[in-house]
Amino acid sequence: MTKKFLLSENDIPRQWYNIVADMKTKPLPMLHPGTKQPLTVSDLEPIFARELCIQELSQERYIDIPDAVREVYKIYRPTPLVRAFGLEKALDTPAHIYFKNESVSPVGSHKLNSAIAQAYYNKEQGIRHLITETGAGQWGTALSFASHYFGLTLKVYMVKVSFEQKPYRKAIMNTWGAEVLPSPSDTTNAGRKILEKNPVASGSLGTAISEAIEVAISQPDSRYALGSVLNHVVLHQTIIGLEAEKQMEMAGAFPDIIIGCFGGGSNFSGIAFPFLRHQLTKGTPLRIIAAEPSSCPKLTRGEFQYDFGDEAGMTPLLPMFTLGHTFQPADIHAGGLRYHGAGTLVSQLKRDNLVEAQNIPQLETFEAATLFAKTEGIVPAPESAHAIASTIREARIAKEEGSAKTILFNLSGHGIMDLAAYAQYYAGELN
Amino acid sequence: MTKKFLLSENDIPRQWYNIVADMKTKPLPMLHPGTKQPLTVSDLEPIFARELCIQELSQERYIDIPDAVREVYKIYRPTPLVRAFGLEKALDTPAHIYFKNESVSPVGSHKLNSAIAQAYYNKEQGIRHLITETGAGQWGTALSFASHYFGLTLKVYMVKVSFEQKPYRKAIMNTWGAEVLPSPSDTTNAGRKILEKNPVASGSLGTAISEAIEVAISQPDSRYALGSVLNHVVLHQTIIGLEAEKQMEMAGAFPDIIIGCFGGGSNFSGIAFPFLRHQLTKGTPLRIIAAEPSSCPKLTRGEFQYDFGDEAGMTPLLPMFTLGHTFQPADIHAGGLRYHGAGTLVSQLKRDNLVEAQNIPQLETFEAATLFAKTEGIVPAPESAHAIASTIREARIAKEEGSAKTILFNLSGHGIMDLAAYAQYYAGELN
Repeated sequence: MTKKFLLSENDIPRQWYNIVADMKTKPLPMLHPGTKQPLTVSDLEPIFARELCIQELSQERYIDIPDAVREVYKIYRPTPLVRAFGLEKALDTPAHIYFKNESVSPVGSHKLNSAIAQAYYNKEQGIRHLITETGAGQWGTALSFASHYFGLTLKVYMVKVSFEQKPYRKAIMNTWGAEVLPSPSDTTNAGRKILEKNPVASGSLGTAISEAIEVAISQPDSRYALGSVLNHVVLHQTIIGLEAEKQMEMAGAFPDIIIGCFGGGSNFSGIAFPFLRHQLTKGTPLRIIAAEPSSCPKLTRGEFQYDFGDEAGMTPLLPMFTLGHTFQPADIHAGGLRYHGAGTLVSQLKRDNLVEAQNIPQLETFEAATLFAKTEGIVPAPESAHAIASTIREARIAKEEGSAKTILFNLSGHGIMDLAAYAQYYAGELN
Repeated sequence: MTKKFLLSENDIPRQWYNIVADMKTKPLPMLHPGTKQPLTVSDLEPIFARELCIQELSQERYIDIPDAVREVYKIYRPTPLVRAFGLEKALDTPAHIYFKNESVSPVGSHKLNSAIAQAYYNKEQGIRHLITETGAGQWGTALSFASHYFGLTLKVYMVKVSFEQKPYRKAIMNTWGAEVLPSPSDTTNAGRKILEKNPVASGSLGTAISEAIEVAISQPDSRYALGSVLNHVVLHQTIIGLEAEKQMEMAGAFPDIIIGCFGGGSNFSGIAFPFLRHQLTKGTPLRIIAAEPSSCPKLTRGEFQYDFGDEAGMTPLLPMFTLGHTFQPADIHAGGLRYHGAGTLVSQLKRDNLVEAQNIPQLETFEAATLFAKTEGIVPAPESAHAIASTIREARIAKEEGSAKTILFNLSGHGIMDLAAYAQYYAGELN
């Protein structure tokens, strides 16, 4: 009984996949916040490294992965695809459940896939300082490692509720030399404005993004870096699905359903888009489910409209499903999903009914996480637990229908740095 | 440039290696604590599952790995062998450095290799309850997972200083249903005796073992399980070296030096013994170095004599290098190395000059750990950091000598649950 489908380092893809090329309805353009005109590469250049701006607006189907990036990928890639026999048995389901295990990355999540690429392009351009935000800390940790690797300094604005819930996240970012500040902070206008209104504000990704952009554009040799939402981030994450595609072939199967947890869309798009390509180009039937928290339900309850990516309104206007850029989500443990909007690609695909969404209450995600840990041995990140909960829902439906569906979900990260949340759950203190 | 040498699930070894068969000088027998006669299987049977007692005294060269155990190994095995190019470059050494990455196990360390086997043999015999001790928590976590998998209950006595330093260890053990108690506790005679003398005793592995054995032998359908020191534990851990042997062949190299951190000997023996076999049977030159903490230097400063494995004197008498079974080591973060004695096999090999030892101050281990995290991306367990520090010492000597030595070390576990220790180190609060 083979559980794991493993590729060799030579099998690491040499190109990322850009789904825009295959979308029949292209997404609406991003707009300049001042002029309200469609965004150009030069509009974006003060914020991001030039190559990332080009990728952001690219319509090319495939974009080469630089050799230097592929070399760093070899630290942890290819990641395993695993048949979840233990979970299947516990659910007594005829469904075949597979998961792509991105938790084996040394920083514990898929975020490294884009962090390495972003640090590399900034370094190539001669940028010396990166500034970013982080929610649960997964992105900040990944960019800390990548920035150190390429010799860049990094400042991280960490959403305050997570900064306090997960003190050791700071330690791991410090390991790679990053400076970590709780957000809102008094180091920026955006932060001070929030603190004036509410001195004990617990923060949000939207606010942390405002602070990071403000610092990045006001300092020399500095750029901002974002861990989700945008097209270039999603592009880098397609390496997940491109590998999984080869591995599902090894398993002799093709998924009926693909599931990812959903914050801004990075891991979700990363696993889904390379498979969705088959549907877009060949009509292969496929359901794709975004699993979002009930407390931050942008895809299931948000509205599609132009909105800012940050709280203070410094980003371009993005056409997206959003709860409003000043939305303050509840302090759930899945800090990485506490974001008000969905990326433009996923938003358009949702409008075109190519992507579904489910929202899931926190307790259900911890029940799912614990069952997964018991049956598959891996304690999942609270974010990834949303994908597991949705997988369990679908596997139970498959059982009712007596249908041997193939379900693939992305295990975006492990929960070893989130054990305080599990301790609360075991103590009956979660709701 | 290939970094990782990966095997397929089919390559997982089908037998463990028992070095006793190839030792020219056999170890002295373990003695019954009452009669002082050489120990028999039936002496051990009240404490351990019968099959483990047979393995403990076996002289067979190879022992079959049960299919059911091999199936569970597939959750994380084979583990990668990695060429540490980043570390080599940072040290500017001509040495070639490889490490076996046991940190990819879902519990974060090599301990699962024996936990699975022990839980399996207990289950097969109809045992229903296991009791064990844990230092840093690595063994307790591994046995929690394995006990849950095979449907056994588990009670863990955790050394109090670690219980307090690492609160989330309890949460992960709870994930798999284990009950976790700080040791010394008031639930046993052994614990109460210590607490009477010193109500704030921080505990030791020796005391926790006494408590666990006391409970195991006084309850029906119960057995004790140990995570290191004994021959049957070391036997199971040889899967590390047996895999590494195949992977070094893939890399076209054979180690000149093998290094493992040393507590009781489980990960050290696991990586070293399959290679030492070449020296014992064919005279292949090889240096093997045990890296132990300066604060618990049993191999470098202990005496070879018969001693108890636990504080209260409930175990058999073992012929070993020991600091004395009542030795109380300092509260270093490498809790898994806070043990007074070395296993009998390693002790005999040390007497025969087939194994060397180095002792390393805590600060040097954290310096080494941080360099490793920066260059290889993985935050190591404080225990494994001893092996890294010793590797760095040898790589620097290789540089002075201008010699392209091949060094292999075992990364026994990651330090993601030890970030509080790193935070202390970064704050300059460690000594």
